[in-house]
Amino acid sequence: MSAELLAAKFLGQLPHALALGIEVVSVDVARGACSMRLPWRAELVGDPAQEVLHGGVITALLDSLGAAAVIVRGLYSPATLDLRIDYLRPATPRSDLIAEAECYRTTRHIAFVRGVCHQGDRERPVANLTATFIFAERTRAAGGV
Amino acid sequence: MSAELLAAKFLGQLPHALALGIEVVSVDVARGACSMRLPWRAELVGDPAQEVLHGGVITALLDSLGAAAVIVRGLYSPATLDLRIDYLRPATPRSDLIAEAECYRTTRHIAFVRGVCHQGDRERPVANLTATFIFAERTRAAGGV
Amino acid sequence: MSAELLAAKFLGQLPHALALGIEVVSVDVARGACSMRLPWRAELVGDPAQEVLHGGVITALLDSLGAAAVIVRGLYSPATLDLRIDYLRPATPRSDLIAEAECYRTTRHIAFVRGVCHQGDRERPVANLTATFIFAERTRAAGGV
Amino acid sequence: MSAELLAAKFLGQLPHALALGIEVVSVDVARGACSMRLPWRAELVGDPAQEVLHGGVITALLDSLGAAAVIVRGLYSPATLDLRIDYLRPATPRSDLIAEAECYRTTRHIAFVRGVCHQGDRERPVANLTATFIFAERTRAAGGV
Repeated sequence: MSAELLAAKFLGQLPHALALGIEVVSVDVARGACSMRLPWRAELVGDPAQEVLHGGVITALLDSLGAAAVIVRGLYSPATLDLRIDYLRPATPRSDLIAEAECYRTTRHIAFVRGVCHQGDRERPVANLTATFIFAERTRAAGGV
Repeated sequence: MSAELLAAKFLGQLPHALALGIEVVSVDVARGACSMRLPWRAELVGDPAQEVLHGGVITALLDSLGAAAVIVRGLYSPATLDLRIDYLRPATPRSDLIAEAECYRTTRHIAFVRGVCHQGDRERPVANLTATFIFAERTRAAGGV
Repeated sequence: MSAELLAAKFLGQLPHALALGIEVVSVDVARGACSMRLPWRAELVGDPAQEVLHGGVITALLDSLGAAAVIVRGLYSPATLDLRIDYLRPATPRSDLIAEAECYRTTRHIAFVRGVCHQGDRERPVANLTATFIFAERTRAAGGV
Repeated sequence: MSAELLAAKFLGQLPHALALGIEVVSVDVARGACSMRLPWRAELVGDPAQEVLHGGVITALLDSLGAAAVIVRGLYSPATLDLRIDYLRPATPRSDLIAEAECYRTTRHIAFVRGVCHQGDRERPVANLTATFIFAERTRAAGGV
């Protein structure tokens, strides 16, 4: 199965991600990278006066994205072991979230992921992801590492 | 306003938390502690064959709960600075999530929170929360710290 | 080999910990718990005017202690996978550090550890540790988990 | 005072860092970046059979470096609020550690830092740093942010 299909299938298994409206934007198998978009919607706003997406939505987006990056790298059934998110600045009102993550290192059992969430300008990130995942086994595509 | 009302008002500002079905279970103003429940629902399941709540749901629950614990302590407008979640074991099928958090230390600008998510037996936690929040100002109820 | 001997042997393999003057205080095999003390010494002070142990010393103490707790639990060759330390308040001048950690959960490959560093009063902790370790294999003493 | 002098003065206040033999390699005021080197020494080895620097040494190096990056950015008296370190691969025997960190975002009270530790090849990092610091006030050089 292609990485695009795997990432889409992964999202399809996450009713929570689907309910938020998260979409796969791009997949880069060589780098183990993936990006997703969460379109702004009034229902996801925290404070109606501000029209800003609620912080928990960023958390959910980065959590789903991190696991997808591990799958894109060719690793089956990733489970989050631990994750850290730094919230760097408030989100901009009425603006989509874009998140990009990379599975930048794997060992026999562990996949290390880092990512970022922004709103169009990567130099002004809204949040930062650092996470580790444990996975069941490698697909043939993942090769020996 | 009482801590119970503040916590309920806080949840009311989180359409995302409401959509998941998160409920306030208890509030302890003296300890800065709060607990919440997320009832099991078929729509929040990851893998239909397993009937287990998806991991992102745990993340969302702990994130909302942590901010509520800061409010219960008498601090206004907490914003998550960074959070860490450790995922300790898979959730049990068809079982509710219960999460408990405590704002165990505050300084002039920072609130430190720790919490746990379990399914009825605190000795078998599903996930562990460690987080810091930054807050705008203290309510009178918070007193001098 | 007894847990006490294992913990002492572990410290003996850490010239860095020995150079700092870290000592094993107690070992609890059943809980996978361990405590250590770092006596105050003028050479470990950050700002001479304050006579407070430098923050990096707390980090080193908690890092060594976390690995020792995994060994006490009966697991061989733990390697830190990731650790988080929260610094809760400044250390008290001319005062020893006491650190306590517990390996509170293990899976097939991962050990979860939490700990605290204080100066005599556990209710006034100086720092908080959250960490995961990966380990080579179980000793017979560790039993099945 | 120049950033180089500030970074050197900072190291001079850390007897622990000096005892390890940590040296400032470079300082980039515009980026709030700093790099340091810890030369391999037999006394810092964990397992004599492997001749690899002990893990706690990496922790101490990244902790000191993170605070230095905040100072380089023009911020006074940084105190670590929390830090996360991911340990990505074992260090190479008889080889120096090089660590690079950047204070990539500041708010009114908080400085966000990320960094990496490698042994000459940045594409093969040994460890990864994510940290937040709280600081007393800005120097004139830091400008308005």
